[in-house]
Amino acid sequence: MQKLKNYLCDRWVEGEGVQTVLLNPANGEAVAQASSAGIDYAAAFAHARETGGAKLRAMTFAERGRLLKAMSAAIHEHREELIEIGMLNAGNTRGDAKFDIDGAVGTLAAYAYVGKTMGETRNWLDGEAIDMGQSSRMQGRHLRVPRRGVAILINAYNFPAWGMMEKAACALLAGMPVISKPGTITAMLAHRIVEILVERGIMPAGSFGFVCGSAGDMLDHVEFQDCIAFTGSASTGKLIRSHPRVLEKGVRVNVEADSLNCAILGPDVEPDTETFDLFVRDVTTDLTQKAGQKCTAIRRVIVPEAMVEPLRERLVTELGRVKLGVPGAEGVRMGPLAGPAQLADAREKLKSLLAVARPLIGDPDRVEAIGDPEGKGAFMAPLVLLAPSAEAAPAVHEVEVFGPVATVVPYDGSAARAAAISAMGEGGLVASFYSDDRDFAAELIETMAPNQGRLVWGSKRSAASAPTPGTVFPQFIHGGPGRAGCGEELGGERGLEFFSQRVAVQGFGPMLDRLFTTREG
Amino acid sequence: MQKLKNYLCDRWVEGEGVQTVLLNPANGEAVAQASSAGIDYAAAFAHARETGGAKLRAMTFAERGRLLKAMSAAIHEHREELIEIGMLNAGNTRGDAKFDIDGAVGTLAAYAYVGKTMGETRNWLDGEAIDMGQSSRMQGRHLRVPRRGVAILINAYNFPAWGMMEKAACALLAGMPVISKPGTITAMLAHRIVEILVERGIMPAGSFGFVCGSAGDMLDHVEFQDCIAFTGSASTGKLIRSHPRVLEKGVRVNVEADSLNCAILGPDVEPDTETFDLFVRDVTTDLTQKAGQKCTAIRRVIVPEAMVEPLRERLVTELGRVKLGVPGAEGVRMGPLAGPAQLADAREKLKSLLAVARPLIGDPDRVEAIGDPEGKGAFMAPLVLLAPSAEAAPAVHEVEVFGPVATVVPYDGSAARAAAISAMGEGGLVASFYSDDRDFAAELIETMAPNQGRLVWGSKRSAASAPTPGTVFPQFIHGGPGRAGCGEELGGERGLEFFSQRVAVQGFGPMLDRLFTTREG
Repeated sequence: MQKLKNYLCDRWVEGEGVQTVLLNPANGEAVAQASSAGIDYAAAFAHARETGGAKLRAMTFAERGRLLKAMSAAIHEHREELIEIGMLNAGNTRGDAKFDIDGAVGTLAAYAYVGKTMGETRNWLDGEAIDMGQSSRMQGRHLRVPRRGVAILINAYNFPAWGMMEKAACALLAGMPVISKPGTITAMLAHRIVEILVERGIMPAGSFGFVCGSAGDMLDHVEFQDCIAFTGSASTGKLIRSHPRVLEKGVRVNVEADSLNCAILGPDVEPDTETFDLFVRDVTTDLTQKAGQKCTAIRRVIVPEAMVEPLRERLVTELGRVKLGVPGAEGVRMGPLAGPAQLADAREKLKSLLAVARPLIGDPDRVEAIGDPEGKGAFMAPLVLLAPSAEAAPAVHEVEVFGPVATVVPYDGSAARAAAISAMGEGGLVASFYSDDRDFAAELIETMAPNQGRLVWGSKRSAASAPTPGTVFPQFIHGGPGRAGCGEELGGERGLEFFSQRVAVQGFGPMLDRLFTTREG
Repeated sequence: MQKLKNYLCDRWVEGEGVQTVLLNPANGEAVAQASSAGIDYAAAFAHARETGGAKLRAMTFAERGRLLKAMSAAIHEHREELIEIGMLNAGNTRGDAKFDIDGAVGTLAAYAYVGKTMGETRNWLDGEAIDMGQSSRMQGRHLRVPRRGVAILINAYNFPAWGMMEKAACALLAGMPVISKPGTITAMLAHRIVEILVERGIMPAGSFGFVCGSAGDMLDHVEFQDCIAFTGSASTGKLIRSHPRVLEKGVRVNVEADSLNCAILGPDVEPDTETFDLFVRDVTTDLTQKAGQKCTAIRRVIVPEAMVEPLRERLVTELGRVKLGVPGAEGVRMGPLAGPAQLADAREKLKSLLAVARPLIGDPDRVEAIGDPEGKGAFMAPLVLLAPSAEAAPAVHEVEVFGPVATVVPYDGSAARAAAISAMGEGGLVASFYSDDRDFAAELIETMAPNQGRLVWGSKRSAASAPTPGTVFPQFIHGGPGRAGCGEELGGERGLEFFSQRVAVQGFGPMLDRLFTTREG
């Protein structure tokens, strides 16, 4: 069986023993093993900071952009092979695997473009020159410079390709070397991607490291110029934020964590309209795509009382078309969860929801999966619950079942009430609403905006071309306040901010001008 | 004796008992007392969030700017009275008190101007509209909205006026209500300022609260939309960041903490030049202004070996002119530390420095203060130490003696070495360098920028008009990586970012446009 290695100090390193056996979640069979035990993080980080950092900082933004473009192209060329790996190790359908891999390719390409736009310079000015006195020529400027540490990128198991590259693209373009740690159980795909990049020889020395296994004592080796970008559970996020060494050194941490994303149906929307269709499409997609294992997936479906039944009817039809089963088997459009532990966790958390909400569609105790007659796979069938009311079901706003589960929460049709229910989630990555009433939309945007990283307005005007709200675009920020981790990733150039230090430089104006405009500083 | 009260829920509340007796640090006499015991933080925060938040959010940026202007004017009108209080309770000379009060007045006025510039709108757009597809009309925008919590502003004792208002100006202009807690021992000044604002009736209901005493269980009541902006010791900063409720709710925290700021003398600078004079002026000012109790004060003076003696000679002369004594007494240009506890702390920390560096100017065991023959005041005389080398004196890069103490660290005259010594401080608020050599300056800027919040280039061209590097301008960011707290305050509009949520809004382009350009959303 393949043993996945770690890539550190520009060479492949085998971990000691076996920490994790990677499975095919559709049948429970082992497909690879991984370990990071014995890794010398101190040496790996030092190499990244010194060699990788210097190499990247010597490059212009446009050069770093070309690096990202080459990475994007290399991954794209291996697309078919990578899709197979996603199907084998991540429980992905072919569509799910494409979504992940194309996400990585597209995000790298988008940041290649950002680099091109920023140009053949290493200067990144933030705003105009500012006078410091009325008559003097003292001025100051703000600029952003790459932090001189290593960007430690810790990803979740649900997007081994996209998750890795959305963080790496921002860090590398900002001029920081990265060490990327995927969620171990689905790491085969990330591992193969790193192999491809290494085989191509396109990564500058020290610029890219890869840890395939437990984080071990990684955080004991951070220094004050390092950055930690984490995606995963809120509990692990808290552990990172409160780690003694992280606190001691004042290391920057970005967390993207739990989120009880909601979709709100406006009171103006009737069944059999384009807007209603869009709403149903989005709820269906988020329940089934990646088997509901998206941090941005709709978990709370907030609808006017009278629309609960029309929605149920439509979802029964739509979900009936999505066949659950072994990826690649005839007709299958939804795969298993990422593994048995994830299934157990989802089932355990589901209990909290079932204590306060009743099944509206689906049976929590029943699962039938095509190609898995003996029930060996980590399959979970789509389940839609109904809460009697928002207040009667507090768990619905607190517990994220990371699988194909959403809860319908009825409301009175007012924007204020919808926003208040949404806010009970205490911070989310994305909220969507579906309405053709501009005033309703305006009120929702104003009241919900502080609680969300992203808002998506679905309407009949957008129905033909709107992507699902769960889709993360590199041009837009991804993150959210409160429970969602209080972080921010992506957003075009905004995504580079975390990996840079903003500094004010003051002095005699004409001398500063000369420095920043004529010199490649 | 005056008992300072707390201002919460739009009324003055007396705390239970006495938590702190406020002294005149120049003679040790009690001048007031304070307590926050018994405060109902849950009610106070709720009032601020609900009433204050709604009031402020209903105002345009220009209206909030006018509020700041009115606050600035009200404080300025009471300038003489406030100077007296600073001299009485904070150990300030008249110049020190002005520096603090004028800093508050100027910062409020600067943010009033920022508000005017942002205009009669409540919309704060971040960047242009972004297309989401090649042929569709789906677009997205980023906007910033006020967080719907309370801004909890915890300040240090050294700038009771300026410290309070630099945070409050940003929060209020961003649209967040504030509850401000000054350092208790010098809180008389902050207390009087709040009294003035309340008497004027200019603060919208719920927009401004004031806690005069211990923080108590304040942090147990934070919610996810709150922000905590803290200035003080790194150890308290860590306690806030790792507070269970703060972590649980994902509350935003900004810390501005310890900083071993450095001033670097370039190898090109000869004695008896304008550039050298500027360098000496800045070191002298930072040793004596506010008795060295500035977070931005120069703590490490990095000079070429050969310049140690010329620097010593000049500093002896300059420091000889600065008479230490009771503020207001004839000829006194430097006052005591803020109190006996602060003096004891400074003396204790000084021991670590004296273990690795020897006195170059001044005697750590001797202090003579005009008007204090019996030694009742918290006086500490200026002290300049000399480290044998950067590496031989690790404490010099780690221990901040918050008083009139700086250490000279010799170096070889190379920019690389100066930057490396600077970096041993592991993150600072500000670093200054003095040189007329453009290449030296360029190299220093490039290598030091990631480790600092602000860089100040002193040169013969700037000598006539340069403010000291320790002066914090509202137009420039204030904060720094690592040990300095990893935070960022001020910087004009940048200072509002912390108090706002950036959110992406996606939908049908023309409908979004209409919403954000024709409507006061």
